[in-house]
Amino acid sequence: MEIIRIPMIMREVTMTERIRGKTIGFVPTMGALHEGHLSLVRMAKGENNISVVSIYVNPKQFGPAEDFLKYPRDTEGDIEKLAGEGVDILFLPDDPHMYLEDFTTQVKVEGLSERLCGFFRPGHFTGVATVVTKLFNIVIPHKAYFGQKDYQQTVIIKRLVKDLNMNVEIVVCPTVREKDGVAMSSRNAYLLKEERQAATAIYSCLQEASKAARSGTTDVKELKRLMENILCAVPLFSHVQYASAYNPETLEELEKIKGEALLAVAVKIGNTRLIDNLMVVPARNTIVY
Amino acid sequence: MEIIRIPMIMREVTMTERIRGKTIGFVPTMGALHEGHLSLVRMAKGENNISVVSIYVNPKQFGPAEDFLKYPRDTEGDIEKLAGEGVDILFLPDDPHMYLEDFTTQVKVEGLSERLCGFFRPGHFTGVATVVTKLFNIVIPHKAYFGQKDYQQTVIIKRLVKDLNMNVEIVVCPTVREKDGVAMSSRNAYLLKEERQAATAIYSCLQEASKAARSGTTDVKELKRLMENILCAVPLFSHVQYASAYNPETLEELEKIKGEALLAVAVKIGNTRLIDNLMVVPARNTIVY
Repeated sequence: MEIIRIPMIMREVTMTERIRGKTIGFVPTMGALHEGHLSLVRMAKGENNISVVSIYVNPKQFGPAEDFLKYPRDTEGDIEKLAGEGVDILFLPDDPHMYLEDFTTQVKVEGLSERLCGFFRPGHFTGVATVVTKLFNIVIPHKAYFGQKDYQQTVIIKRLVKDLNMNVEIVVCPTVREKDGVAMSSRNAYLLKEERQAATAIYSCLQEASKAARSGTTDVKELKRLMENILCAVPLFSHVQYASAYNPETLEELEKIKGEALLAVAVKIGNTRLIDNLMVVPARNTIVY
Repeated sequence: MEIIRIPMIMREVTMTERIRGKTIGFVPTMGALHEGHLSLVRMAKGENNISVVSIYVNPKQFGPAEDFLKYPRDTEGDIEKLAGEGVDILFLPDDPHMYLEDFTTQVKVEGLSERLCGFFRPGHFTGVATVVTKLFNIVIPHKAYFGQKDYQQTVIIKRLVKDLNMNVEIVVCPTVREKDGVAMSSRNAYLLKEERQAATAIYSCLQEASKAARSGTTDVKELKRLMENILCAVPLFSHVQYASAYNPETLEELEKIKGEALLAVAVKIGNTRLIDNLMVVPARNTIVY
């Protein structure tokens, strides 16, 4: 596995491969890799000639009170995992290479960036959209792979790519879960044993809401109540930020389930913020026209 | 000359040429082409295998009270001029192809976009940065050509390209002037005969300030007074928006001329807004350290 640290060199390498007719599959990450990331890596490898993974903890997508400094970092372990998967190139830039001193440009996906997580993390998705634009311009991939766990992120990046006419296909891969259903996340590492146990309520609540929707509950108020009841019963959850059903494209909260809907949750366990989601398609005979 | 209206087709064409090893030179314009534009076209042709010109009056860079609707349009005349220059491809998109209904992304170059013209045209340079990002992603040029008349625009686009790691070289070409010194501009077409005559004061004032700076005037207050005196003596100028010396990189107003400086002016003649600028390098013995 080749490790590249300089954006200009990274671009030269993939540009040369593109001209040779090779396809580039790209997995942007913030490191602390888990099975969720590795499932993206396998997809990227399977569908392309060259696989590129980036590890970069992007400071611009963390708020001032957020966990940038203590975000889990394990570059050595990550390198071992990626080499084990047979990744071709690891792009591992430093801050000074990514954001020069006079850096000042922002890419903002208005509207979508302010909903759900964006409401609780102002500026977060502008940081994401900006760094993803940079990474796409540096790596110039044919396809880029993202996990469905960060559903809002995938919607924003798809819109960004469409709006700015970027030449890359966004592939969204299923959330990978632990045996007890908890979505894999680098932030799970923050959790104490009993917090980790409590976290199972997130997926349970999504499953319960999904079951209710599939068996005919179309009123989102009712689904929301169901979800909140489950989540609020967990004493370790210090804040249920949102838990409801949303339009999967606009991310607006629904009133009625009429077709495919996104069930999404964000809770805080102590200072750790966890998110998860589930797409639900109600049974045909319950769809309201 | 091939005329392409659909972004996806435009990109396919230049992508194919790039893979064949051809270089692409690109001149983005809003049409109503004059000799200034054509000088850029000649540069693009001379330095590249394939020349692409776009004509698109970008609604996002006009304020609500600005001249979007009456901005001069002469597509037939433009096509004739470009064909006459031997341009290879004209990219001529429609609004619905450039901004889909759910378009919502903005590219903003903070700081630089709020100074000079940006102060009087809020949102203008975000509209410019957004459309230029789109056009670069559609045309994927090796080099793109801009006129120095829109100096602030060139600084913002250079920063944008650097900040977002875009793979394009920005070439800034000298302002082309009428015989009487007035900088060529599509908006000159708005001017009545006496207004057009009055417009000569803009370049005169830049020349006078340049002369003063080159012969030892380093105090910008003094240069500014000199410029304003010339401009305010013209009764047809309804508003002198700015006239002073600026740092050519940060666009901040200078206090002392210490090296290369940008002299820049914006005035309104009736409802027509005209801008011009001149780079000045003071004589070596007058440089203040």
